[in-house]
Amino acid sequence: MCPQPNESISIELQQLQLDADGRNERTQWLLNSPEPPSFCNELMNSVSETVLPQKNIFFPSNSKQCKAGVFSFLQGLFPILSWGRNYKPNMFKHDLLAGLTLASLCIPQSIGYANLANLEPQYGLYTSVVPPLIYAVMGSSRELAIGPVAVVSLLLSAMVTEIVDPAVDPIAYTSLVFTVTFFAGTFQAAFGLLRLGFLVDFLSHAAIVGFMGGAAIIIGLQQLKSLIGISHFTNKTDVVSVLRAVFRSFHDEALSPMNFILGCSFLIFILATRFIGKRNKKLFWLPAIAPLLSVIVATLMVYLTKADQHGVKIVKHFKGGLNPSSVHQLQFNGPHLGQVAKIGLICGLVALTEAIAVGRSFASMKGYHLDGNKEMVAMGFMNIVGSLTSCYTATGSFSRTAVNFSAGCETVVSNIVMAITVFISLELLTKLLYYTPLAILASVILSALPGLIDINEAYHIWKVDKMDFIVCIGAFFGVLFVSVEIGLLIAVGISFARIILDTIRASTEVQGRLPGTLDTFCDITQYPRATSTSGILIIRINSGSLCFANATSIRERVMKLVTHTNGNEENTKENVHLAVLDMSNVMSVDTSGIVMLEELHRELVSQSIQLTIANPRLRVINKMKTAKCFDKLGKGWIFLTIGDAVDACLSLKIADLSSTNC
Amino acid sequence: MCPQPNESISIELQQLQLDADGRNERTQWLLNSPEPPSFCNELMNSVSETVLPQKNIFFPSNSKQCKAGVFSFLQGLFPILSWGRNYKPNMFKHDLLAGLTLASLCIPQSIGYANLANLEPQYGLYTSVVPPLIYAVMGSSRELAIGPVAVVSLLLSAMVTEIVDPAVDPIAYTSLVFTVTFFAGTFQAAFGLLRLGFLVDFLSHAAIVGFMGGAAIIIGLQQLKSLIGISHFTNKTDVVSVLRAVFRSFHDEALSPMNFILGCSFLIFILATRFIGKRNKKLFWLPAIAPLLSVIVATLMVYLTKADQHGVKIVKHFKGGLNPSSVHQLQFNGPHLGQVAKIGLICGLVALTEAIAVGRSFASMKGYHLDGNKEMVAMGFMNIVGSLTSCYTATGSFSRTAVNFSAGCETVVSNIVMAITVFISLELLTKLLYYTPLAILASVILSALPGLIDINEAYHIWKVDKMDFIVCIGAFFGVLFVSVEIGLLIAVGISFARIILDTIRASTEVQGRLPGTLDTFCDITQYPRATSTSGILIIRINSGSLCFANATSIRERVMKLVTHTNGNEENTKENVHLAVLDMSNVMSVDTSGIVMLEELHRELVSQSIQLTIANPRLRVINKMKTAKCFDKLGKGWIFLTIGDAVDACLSLKIADLSSTNC
Repeated sequence: MCPQPNESISIELQQLQLDADGRNERTQWLLNSPEPPSFCNELMNSVSETVLPQKNIFFPSNSKQCKAGVFSFLQGLFPILSWGRNYKPNMFKHDLLAGLTLASLCIPQSIGYANLANLEPQYGLYTSVVPPLIYAVMGSSRELAIGPVAVVSLLLSAMVTEIVDPAVDPIAYTSLVFTVTFFAGTFQAAFGLLRLGFLVDFLSHAAIVGFMGGAAIIIGLQQLKSLIGISHFTNKTDVVSVLRAVFRSFHDEALSPMNFILGCSFLIFILATRFIGKRNKKLFWLPAIAPLLSVIVATLMVYLTKADQHGVKIVKHFKGGLNPSSVHQLQFNGPHLGQVAKIGLICGLVALTEAIAVGRSFASMKGYHLDGNKEMVAMGFMNIVGSLTSCYTATGSFSRTAVNFSAGCETVVSNIVMAITVFISLELLTKLLYYTPLAILASVILSALPGLIDINEAYHIWKVDKMDFIVCIGAFFGVLFVSVEIGLLIAVGISFARIILDTIRASTEVQGRLPGTLDTFCDITQYPRATSTSGILIIRINSGSLCFANATSIRERVMKLVTHTNGNEENTKENVHLAVLDMSNVMSVDTSGIVMLEELHRELVSQSIQLTIANPRLRVINKMKTAKCFDKLGKGWIFLTIGDAVDACLSLKIADLSSTNC
Repeated sequence: MCPQPNESISIELQQLQLDADGRNERTQWLLNSPEPPSFCNELMNSVSETVLPQKNIFFPSNSKQCKAGVFSFLQGLFPILSWGRNYKPNMFKHDLLAGLTLASLCIPQSIGYANLANLEPQYGLYTSVVPPLIYAVMGSSRELAIGPVAVVSLLLSAMVTEIVDPAVDPIAYTSLVFTVTFFAGTFQAAFGLLRLGFLVDFLSHAAIVGFMGGAAIIIGLQQLKSLIGISHFTNKTDVVSVLRAVFRSFHDEALSPMNFILGCSFLIFILATRFIGKRNKKLFWLPAIAPLLSVIVATLMVYLTKADQHGVKIVKHFKGGLNPSSVHQLQFNGPHLGQVAKIGLICGLVALTEAIAVGRSFASMKGYHLDGNKEMVAMGFMNIVGSLTSCYTATGSFSRTAVNFSAGCETVVSNIVMAITVFISLELLTKLLYYTPLAILASVILSALPGLIDINEAYHIWKVDKMDFIVCIGAFFGVLFVSVEIGLLIAVGISFARIILDTIRASTEVQGRLPGTLDTFCDITQYPRATSTSGILIIRINSGSLCFANATSIRERVMKLVTHTNGNEENTKENVHLAVLDMSNVMSVDTSGIVMLEELHRELVSQSIQLTIANPRLRVINKMKTAKCFDKLGKGWIFLTIGDAVDACLSLKIADLSSTNC
């Protein structure tokens, strides 16, 4: 009676031996995994990957390659060289139409944004001439409409006003704005050349939504100045200061209701045309030219009725002609240089973020991808040249890009058409704009704001990710109640704090074998069908890095799980005698993490539980080797998969049983 | 001839059908995974898990449970209640010996550290009386020797001196030190009660090694004052200032070489005894009593030779007797309250870090675990009571704990024995200590410093983890060349910057099937044996979170991998037509991450490649569901494992083939 079971046991043992061979082979693969690159190599690789665009550009092997390399380098820098050769007259028809539509929206917006930035109106128009032309030869987006935008204008006025009051010394203020623009351009170009495009990502989607919403409200409140016709306003941008200034003006000043009536009626007109344009896609040009139409009609009205003598505030100062040089206005030796550079950095980054976000979303609609680094270089050069030709910081405008897109632009030629049109109007029409009422400019800006406040997106963020929503409202309220920079800082701060918190609050999960599979182990919370093996506790570390910040808490969680499982199984089953620590998720480990593993091993051994490590990654296993961790944990207790670890434990048990049987 | 293949195909198709059923079932499990807890629930759970020690303590169900709960709560707060009942006379023998050895080391060290903290010597001894007694009833470590320590004394003197100069107003300085101690205790107790024990982990192992090394050198340099006998020293702690002060004193002051000779000869004696103690474990008491012996011998020498009249600097002021009350000295309404609280916070955290690090390493030697939160409460109360009884910030000393351990202490009773011995010497011996030369105190402190500089550990850190080494030398040089706080800040800053960098520089890896396994896919860099399936590219995201900071770079990496693979396989095999994105590592995703997945899908589709998601985790899949991401990606292309995704793709191909065959 004995041989029969003995034989079956010997077959079983043979099978076990085969399994064990496979396991051992896999463990050998794991233990002999190749060395990762050394720290210096890795650092160099990472830097060169970031900084150098392509490896062969700088070290071509022959002259033909060299020529081709130079041409492809130039093509990369000036995309017009590649698309220009395929440009067809048919495309120009579309670009001309789009460019003209764009110009009709751009002229009133530029004047309004210059007003928002506390600059004379012609600077807004200048900014719509030179930067679009530079972008046309260097930029790779086909839809982006370049020029002044609301948020950057607000940022400039809010931050430069803290250094020089434009009401006191407008010339010094204007010089500072050009210097800031120069710095913004330099930073943008430098980031692009150093391939630091990822910096733009630090303003997350949620942060942008909140920031834009807050900025739009702030910009709207700023327009109350022109809309009501206030003479003495505040330089601060937060809601409380602005509302206090508005209420004070009701007391102190004699306000003419004409400004308000004029502004509101044209605002209603512009919004009505937009409504019509949305209902009937063919009338897309109506909302686009409505602002210009409003400006012309209102200017004529004021001119004919001499309303400016009855309290209607008008633009007055307006210098026409080509962009004058502003090289001599740049100040690089003032006492505020550090502050100016800081403002340049912030404006540059915000401008880039807006442009790249807008550019990418339209590019993905047309199915091509925008290289962030190239865009940064283009924007940088465009702003450097702009700062030398009396332009302030330009970027891609959301509202005008949308108009450009719906007007059917084919290439960036529409920007060239727009720039030329604006230039012509600078030459011919500026004298006519003398009588333009400020209230109309306010209504043009106000009409562009609803596009910046995206309540649907905020609701979507709230539904999907609560922490992102906190970032979003952090930016929103920061901008609204403190200042624009603080709002940005809050958003970036919360975003990064969240990454750190995620690492600190690393969790662990118990895994079980999924029914119907051999070697698939899953979280038993996510898959309640997964079953655990009696006596074996499989724990996965849910963190990308096992480091000083979470090592202690992970050890405590593991010990708690062991105690808990033993407590629950006390009455029914055997106690845990094997703890499998699945490290597949752990990409990096530091010295604290390794010390923790050794401590955990000691602690488990004192409760007569064997610690097993499953699937450590390349970096982790190499660090463990260097730290001689396996000498302490035991080399036999490292497996490639959880399945191997469990099987090894079970086969040990069967071997125990068979040896006790016979 | 046709039926045969047809039949085999139909069997194959049946098998495929079975496989597909299994796959579909698993995908259903994946898609119908349970809802994770809502944001509010999760927040509440996390807070209650952090703050509340046990759930049933506050809401007991009956009076018996209530009594037991109260008792276990008291036992938790006062561990003496649990170990005290098992205390045996045999243990006391060991504790008495350890306590006496400890006291003999503690008395000279306490006087020296008080000197380092710019306090009168008796305050050092006071600090070795009350805090150890409080810790004895509340603490749970059995080896920790409580009292003043070098690093905290240095921190106090460095930071409080910036507010009040002890040379100008020693009484105000002393009051501020007590107030700082009160704040330190309050913060420690609060952190413990709020279960914020993890705060201590923010000073990583590497940071502590670097910080301690730097602090030891700074402390050593401070001792030059007493060792050379300088009268006018600097208040700054950085190397440059101290060395400048020393060289200046050589010029300006008439220094007596006696101080130096006395200090150095006794330093050599103490170090020699330590060497002997290390060689012969039975003589462990020799290095422990050597400092006291040196003090006694040197004091007698000075008293007998009247060397104090020949330039040897002596302690002079020394008030004996029991700790006086210092309640009236605490200042809570001065202009420096904020600064004092900040110093209290820093000192409290550093003291905790040292105590818990020392306590844990000795606890793990004896095989028990120390609860960080309970220790924090004990330390906090000990310092609060200390601040009311003329003690400055006390904590667990590394050197004395080691002596306590090797003297064979059994419980914290050795601390009680030590406190009583110190108290008796305060009553009887203080008059004798009048003539103690300062140079001897310097040599006592200097002899304790080598234990703080751990070059071997620094080398180990360098070998295992280069980034940790940067943290370590950052702390070291920060302490050495700037200031103690800046050194700490640098270390914590680099540590956290590293976590953020790890997330930003998330990588991707190509996976292949491991030979001899059915469903095990591994990184082909780590396991060069793993083979890829033609036409299928399996990419794993190597990051715990897919978020704004890395979404763009991950998308670019995936696209680059696809382009690269297509480029390589152009000549030989078919192009990639399926990209499997293995998301097993991704624990959390934010809105930017989800937008990225949708964009990636669009971009891949435009190159006619199908995107497949494998093994999204619970949080990820629920966020994707909420964001309606599957509607865009296609529900049929989500699988639980990579194997399922690959099989599904292959079976589609076979089905295609069979349909084209017949």
